[in-house]
Amino acid sequence: MRPRVIVNVAMSADGKISTIQRRQVRISGKEDFLRVDRLKAASDAVIVGIGTVLADNPSLTVKDPILREQRIASGRDPNPVRIVIDSGGRTPLNADILHKGEGKRVIVVSSKAPEERIRALEQYAMVIKTGEDRVDPGQILENLGAVGIRQVMIEGGGNIIWSFFSAGLVDELYSYIGNIIIGGQDAPTLAEGTGFTEENSFVRLSLKNTERLDQGVLLHWDVVR
Amino acid sequence: MRPRVIVNVAMSADGKISTIQRRQVRISGKEDFLRVDRLKAASDAVIVGIGTVLADNPSLTVKDPILREQRIASGRDPNPVRIVIDSGGRTPLNADILHKGEGKRVIVVSSKAPEERIRALEQYAMVIKTGEDRVDPGQILENLGAVGIRQVMIEGGGNIIWSFFSAGLVDELYSYIGNIIIGGQDAPTLAEGTGFTEENSFVRLSLKNTERLDQGVLLHWDVVR
Repeated sequence: MRPRVIVNVAMSADGKISTIQRRQVRISGKEDFLRVDRLKAASDAVIVGIGTVLADNPSLTVKDPILREQRIASGRDPNPVRIVIDSGGRTPLNADILHKGEGKRVIVVSSKAPEERIRALEQYAMVIKTGEDRVDPGQILENLGAVGIRQVMIEGGGNIIWSFFSAGLVDELYSYIGNIIIGGQDAPTLAEGTGFTEENSFVRLSLKNTERLDQGVLLHWDVVR
Repeated sequence: MRPRVIVNVAMSADGKISTIQRRQVRISGKEDFLRVDRLKAASDAVIVGIGTVLADNPSLTVKDPILREQRIASGRDPNPVRIVIDSGGRTPLNADILHKGEGKRVIVVSSKAPEERIRALEQYAMVIKTGEDRVDPGQILENLGAVGIRQVMIEGGGNIIWSFFSAGLVDELYSYIGNIIIGGQDAPTLAEGTGFTEENSFVRLSLKNTERLDQGVLLHWDVVR
C-alpha cells in the first residue's frame, strides 16, 4: 500500500521558501517548529531533495527528546527514516543527515549516479537506484510501502514537492505563511518544475483548517481527488 | 502627502499568481471578487503594470453599479483613476483600460518611450514621463498625492508590486490564497524583481486578519515600519 504523503512547507507572504541565493531563512517561529517536530515524530519517513541537503545541511532528526522516547516506546527508531532524493549521488559524505541522530538513512539515486559515489554513500546509508535520469516518486513510495512505511513527510525543496504533486501523489499540505516579503523572480517557491499550464490540470485542494501561529498563519489543506 | 498604498493579490497555495505562460487563471471566487470591487471603489486610483495589461487586458472598472453611484454621489468619478506603469509606452491603443468605463486614465512612461507612442496614447489618457529606463514609484506617488489622491490600490503584476515593496512604499497587503497548486519555477509570484538577499532587509508584516472566503483564505497584512 502506498504511504500517505504529507508536504510541509514554510513560505513568505509572497510565496518564497528562500532567497534567490537559496539562503536558509527563518520564516516561522518557535510554535511552528514544535508543530513540525510533532509531525516529523508522527511520520515513518521524511523526504528531502539534494538541493535542500546542499543548501541547509539539515539533520531531519526529531528534536524533542520526549517525542523520541515515545517513538522508542512504541517500538520504532527515535527518528523517522531519513530519505534524500539525490539522482546524481551528490550527498556530501559529511552531511549531517548521514551522521546526526540514530535511525535509518536512504539515498535514492538514478542510473546516472557514479558507481564510486554509490559505494561511498553505502558506508552511511542504504542506497536505492530507480529511474534513468531522475528518480521516480511513485516507485519510491511503492518501495517505502513495501517495507511498512505508512506516512511520509516531504520537507522540500520545491522541485521534489513539484515532482510528487505533478504525479498526483500528495495527500495533505501544511503551508505556513510567514510575515515577511522576500521577493525575487528566481527565488524558490514550494512547487517548482514545469508547472501546470491548463486550469483543469491544477491540483485542487480543500482547506481543512487555518491557525494563527507565531507571527503568521498555518494553512492545512487536503488534496482533492 | 504620499497616498496610502494597498497591494491586493490572489495567489495559489504554492504562491503563484498565474501559470508559466502568464495565462489569467481563476484563483478566488465570487465572494472575493465582491471584496476586491469594494476595495477598488474605496480607492482613488488603481495601478497595474504593462505586463498585466498585455496578459489580461483588464478594464479595472468598479463592477457594482451601486458602488459606482455611491462614488458619484460623493463627487467622484464612477471609477478610480486607472494608472498603467508602462515604461516603454506599449499599452495597446485598443486596450480595455483606455475605453471601458468613465473616469481618468494615466499612462506612466519613462524617457525610453518613443515620442510617437506617447502622442498616440495621449488621445486616450494623460501620459506622465518619469525616470530614465524605469519609472520611479516614489515619484509616481508624489505626483498622485499632489493631485489629491489619498488611497492607491496596486493590482499587479509581480514586478510592479516588487518595485513598490523594495522602495518601502507599501502600507497594506491583501493576499488571497486559493485552493489550487499551479507549480512552475518560472510562474510569476506576487513580488518578483531581484528580491531581498539579507534577512534584515526583508519587508516585515503584521497579520491584521484572516478570513475564509470562497474555497481559500484572505490574509490582511500591515507593513511594519
